[in-house]
Parts: sequence; structure tokens; C-alpha cells
Amino acid sequence: MDARLKLGHDAEGVDRASLEPRANPVSSHNHDIEEGTALTPRFDANGLVTAVVTDAASGELLMVAHMNAEALAKTIESGEAWYFSRSRGKLWKKGETSGHVQRVVELRVDCDQDALWLRVEQQGAGACHTGRRSCFYRAVPLGKNGAALQFREEGKAFDPEAVYRKK
Amino acid sequence: MDARLKLGHDAEGVDRASLEPRANPVSSHNHDIEEGTALTPRFDANGLVTAVVTDAASGELLMVAHMNAEALAKTIESGEAWYFSRSRGKLWKKGETSGHVQRVVELRVDCDQDALWLRVEQQGAGACHTGRRSCFYRAVPLGKNGAALQFREEGKAFDPEAVYRKK
Repeated sequence: MDARLKLGHDAEGVDRASLEPRANPVSSHNHDIEEGTALTPRFDANGLVTAVVTDAASGELLMVAHMNAEALAKTIESGEAWYFSRSRGKLWKKGETSGHVQRVVELRVDCDQDALWLRVEQQGAGACHTGRRSCFYRAVPLGKNGAALQFREEGKAFDPEAVYRKK
Repeated sequence: MDARLKLGHDAEGVDRASLEPRANPVSSHNHDIEEGTALTPRFDANGLVTAVVTDAASGELLMVAHMNAEALAKTIESGEAWYFSRSRGKLWKKGETSGHVQRVVELRVDCDQDALWLRVEQQGAGACHTGRRSCFYRAVPLGKNGAALQFREEGKAFDPEAVYRKK
């Protein structure tokens, strides 16, 4: 099973060795993947790549999600963010329930093509299901393990109960 | 095996249901994890959480890496970034070979505590083993699947052959 989907127009064959886990950039050496112009995402054993989503204007990290090949293809085609929900096991358009769609300003891929960066215009009040703008609303104090988390975004930007109507 | 390590000082017991995959924020509902002040990271089956690393000054996404419990503890204690290399299967201090240490300005955790955000001061010329400042140096054109990647950071900031001396 080849976890690396050939999406690019000039991708060369990828040997099986390149499909082994290779998270550490120091030890990944595949010139075509790193220096080429073909998008050849390295999907994991579950067929997913990590998607990091930042606010295009502020640079703030909004959320981290995952994409399968179909979510990635739909995102590229539509310019709006689609993901794959691991818990629900299905394709998911961000904002399909909440209306909080993400318009993709720029999509980037990393050196070893196992992570994507979406710079987005976040529609609506926020990206996080808890009602906050960002999922990263708590800071971990440095210097001492076990210290209490500090809220950085205490107030909610929207009411999740109202936005994600309970079924 | 409990994948959620208790690092916080006031963590409550985590039931096994919360250890099931739950990537989609909409469907994860654990009030203690989302609204509490205890750091209780949700490590995956390999004992890892995703670490997103941005430049504290520019907001640029530098890299995506992984941490195990020990890497996270060392990062918190030292204020410098430690990761776990999936390919080498070992703890790894960023910059231990290159000198390109990352001083952590702020560490944040996301709603369901399976991802971390490090805002860092990147020492040295860059974070990417290819010699670039960021690992995300190529853009994926939107609108049409299969279009060629576009380089956004063509030039190298450092010579990886010199920095990562071949053994």
C-alpha cells in the first residue's frame, strides 16, 4: 500500500523506503520530495496528514486538524478548508455546522510533505468548538512541571451550544 | 495503558473513553480537559503529541514536530525545545547538532490537549534541515489539483552540509 498519493503533475516514483516514518528532518533525505515542485503528500498509516491553521492576518495559530487525500483535493479546488474527522471517520468541511468557514489565503507544504500550513480568513467568531477564536487558549507555564495552565482567551467569542445545535 | 500522562497538579482521573481517537473538536466533550488548569496531554498510540512551532516575533510557522512526555517535561523545565524523533526513536534537543536552539517564549496547549504550540526565538539561521528558515517554503496553488508547487523561500539561509556534519 503506497501511503504517498501522487497528486503532482510531475511526481516521480517514490520507493517504499520513503514511506517509513521519518519525522526528524535531519534524517529525511529525498531530494524530489524536498526540492521538487510536485505535491506528493506523505499520508500516515491512517491516510492523514497534519494541517496547521493560522489566521492569515494576525498569524495566530487557530487549530490543528487532519486531512485525507479527498479533504486536501477539495481544499485545493474550492479554496475553503476541508478536513477529515478522526472521531467521526468522515470528511468534514470546516463551518458546515457553525458557518465558521475558513477561506484559504495560502496553502503550504513542509519539507518532507507530511504537514500542511493553511493561512486562512476565519469566517464567524472563532475556530474552536469551545466558543473561542483559537483552540490554543491556555498557556503552559515554563520552569516547573505541574504548574497550573493559564487561560489566555478566557471569554468565549460565541456560544457553542447555540452554534453547534445539539441533535 | 493510559496514554494520558498526568502532568498537572490537579488533574482528575481520566476515563478510558477519553483515550479513544477524538480529533474532531466538535465531538470531543470533556470539561476537565477543555476548561481545566491541569496539563493532561493526550498522547497518541506512539506516546506522542504534535508540536507546532512558530517564530515568536514574525508569527511564521517554522516547523511541525512531535514530543513524548519526556521531551515535553524537558521543554517546560529548560525553556528550550526538545522533541522526539520518530525516525531515530530518540529524544532530540533542537539545535543539538546545528546549534539552532529554540528558546521558548510561550508554550500553549489546545482544547483537547493533543497538540502544543511553541512560540520560539529561533537561534541561528533557520529551523529546517534543508537550510531554510522555515520547513514550509513551498506553496500549493489553489484552484486546480496537480499544479506545480511554488517556492516561497528559494534561497538557503545556511548550508546544511556544513551545519549537519556528515558522519
